[in-house]
Formats: sequence, C-alpha cells, structure tokens
Amino acid sequence: MADYIAPIGRLIEEFRRLPGVGAKTAARYAFAVLNLSEEAASSFAEAIVGIKRDVHTCPVCFGFCDSSREVCEICSSDVRDKRTVCVVENPKDVMVMEKVRGYRGTYHVLGGTLSPLDNVTPDNLKLKELADRVEKGEIEEIIIATNPTPTGDTTAAYIVRMLEEYPIKVSRLAYGIPVGADIEYADEVTLYRAMEGRRYFGD
Amino acid sequence: MADYIAPIGRLIEEFRRLPGVGAKTAARYAFAVLNLSEEAASSFAEAIVGIKRDVHTCPVCFGFCDSSREVCEICSSDVRDKRTVCVVENPKDVMVMEKVRGYRGTYHVLGGTLSPLDNVTPDNLKLKELADRVEKGEIEEIIIATNPTPTGDTTAAYIVRMLEEYPIKVSRLAYGIPVGADIEYADEVTLYRAMEGRRYFGD
Repeated sequence: MADYIAPIGRLIEEFRRLPGVGAKTAARYAFAVLNLSEEAASSFAEAIVGIKRDVHTCPVCFGFCDSSREVCEICSSDVRDKRTVCVVENPKDVMVMEKVRGYRGTYHVLGGTLSPLDNVTPDNLKLKELADRVEKGEIEEIIIATNPTPTGDTTAAYIVRMLEEYPIKVSRLAYGIPVGADIEYADEVTLYRAMEGRRYFGD
Repeated sequence: MADYIAPIGRLIEEFRRLPGVGAKTAARYAFAVLNLSEEAASSFAEAIVGIKRDVHTCPVCFGFCDSSREVCEICSSDVRDKRTVCVVENPKDVMVMEKVRGYRGTYHVLGGTLSPLDNVTPDNLKLKELADRVEKGEIEEIIIATNPTPTGDTTAAYIVRMLEEYPIKVSRLAYGIPVGADIEYADEVTLYRAMEGRRYFGD
C-alpha cells in the first residue's frame, strides 16, 4: 500500500503546489478537506475554478478585473481621481495599495520590472500603454510605486526618463520600507507614510 | 473597493478554512492558484471534489477506502496477516502506522476515543464491531495503538476489559522516549511511561 490511498494522495500533491507547503502540511490540509461537508468541498473547488474563470485584466490599468465588468471597479469609478495614477509592478500590488484608504487616484500595472537578465525589456511591460495614457493629457501626476529593489529602481528611472517630455508631476513612494523587502508584506501604516512622504523628482 | 475583488476574496475565505491558515497565507495561496494554468486549477478543484467523492469507509476496518473497491486495500490483501489487528483511533492513524514497513497485520479504526465530557460513549465508537471481529475467531492478537492521552488510555483499558473473555493476546504500543531524542528534553509523563515499560535484558 502506498502511504495514502489515491484520492487523498492526489489532493496532497495538489496542495504541495502552493508556496511553502510541504508534505506534512499538504496532508494536514487534505484531511481538513476530507472533514468538510460535501457542500463546503464543492464550494472550495468552485472558488478555485472561479478565480481562474472570473478574474480578468482591466484594459485600462491592467489590474485585476471581475469578469462582470468591462473595466475594473477603480478605473470605472466616478469618485476616483483619474488625474493621479499610481504605477505598480503587479496586479496584486493594487490591492496592497488600496489598503491605504487615503489614496483616491487610479493605477497602472506594469506587469513586472525591467530585468535584462530575465529578458524583460520595455516591450514586455505596459510602459508604452502608460505613455499612451499620459499622452491623452488627462493625467497630472504619476506616483511610481515599484519595489525598492534593483529592478524596481531601474524601472522607476526608466519611467522618469520616458515621461520627462510631458508637463506632469512624477514622484516615487518614499520608502521608509526597508530596502530589499517587498511592499506586499508592508503594514498599512508604513505604506500610508510612504505615500504621504513621496518626493517629487527635480525638487 | 473591497481589499480584494470578489473571486479572489472568495478563494481567500475558502483557504482560511484550512488549519493554521490566516489571512496573509490564504491570500498568498489564492494568488498562487491565480498563477496556475487553467488545467492545473481544474485539476486542483477536481482533486478537492474527488477526495470527498472517492474516499469511503471500509466496512471491515472502518479505515479509508478507495471507492474503486468494496473493502480497503489492506483488508482485501492476500499478503496481510488477518490474525493480527492493530486498533487505532482515526483513519489517518492507519496511514501513520503503515509507515512502519514491518507491520503486516490489519487494522481496526475506532473513530475516536471514549470521552464522557464530549458525550462519546462506547456506542459512538466501533467497539462492538471490534468485538464482533474477535468473536468470529480469526483474530489471534490485538495491538492497541490509541494515543497516550487520558481518553486514549481509557479507551485502551475499555478494550482490554471487553476482550478479556477471548483467548487472544492483547497488547498496547510501548510508550517511551522517541528514538533519537534526548532524555533531557523528555517530559515527566513520557519518562514515567518509559520507566514503567522498561524491558529487562535477557527477556
């Protein structure tokens, strides 16, 4: 006999795909699912299928968008300030920034950072799309919120240069966040301070 | 906007049902699922539904049984010794015991331990079924492998008394110092058990 019968072994293997989940944790999760009601397990399974089916990319900001709408909730909101755009690396960074309740602007998701070593060039990121949005003349301020990492810094510098010709303000988050860390793990207060303390290029 | 759009928030809630998973870990898992391919996510969802659908209880030992067979792989195996039965608390204990590659007997899963405080009486456990198996006369030895906890001890004592009238050997796992551990770090109860269960050289 194998350690686990087939259906249990299979779910354990699936849980092991998750970040930081080893054999013992995966087995613990699988047994927890086995203890769920039939309905709860179906609901869990449906949520997994649903996250792939119902999460799309917003054609304006390239953040996550519920499939029930054309453009995302933030881009289509009347109360958000379309003149201020916060540029982030990844879609989930939008959710992280949204925890700063004070921010009322919109977003632009690059889809990564410039990294020649990983073959990520400006063409692989939504940089042209950012320039296009600025070109339209509705944007007055760009807040760069890339991570304080080498590639995040490079990307920020690239954006500053790219947008030099436009009469807009370009700033970057004040990173009181420790250099080398990821904003996903920053607490809300630190993020809020970083937003408040942003410094304008050319100051 | 909520912190997460609906399909993501929903999966995060589902992951939080798992033992020891908080908000941040659940979010990390949800984004990992979002990064899986469509096929991988379907496979994950199917494994969750599958573990509920395909895992049944073996009518002989009450352990887990693949739905493709009537009785479980162990009970239906020709090479397992049906005369020796290891009594465990829960179905997953069977899998734990199976790691002891040397054990070639079969199992009997009680489905818990006697615990009057939790309203678990002998009728709630598969104790009568154990007596019935012994009654048939094919069993020669019962190895009790309940946990060394107050309720596990009570249950073991109950089984010993219940089977007194039958001409079979009844034993219990030796509880003592784990192999590889240092007695300096063993708790008093474990040390007491180890002392009690000491074995004389020459036995």
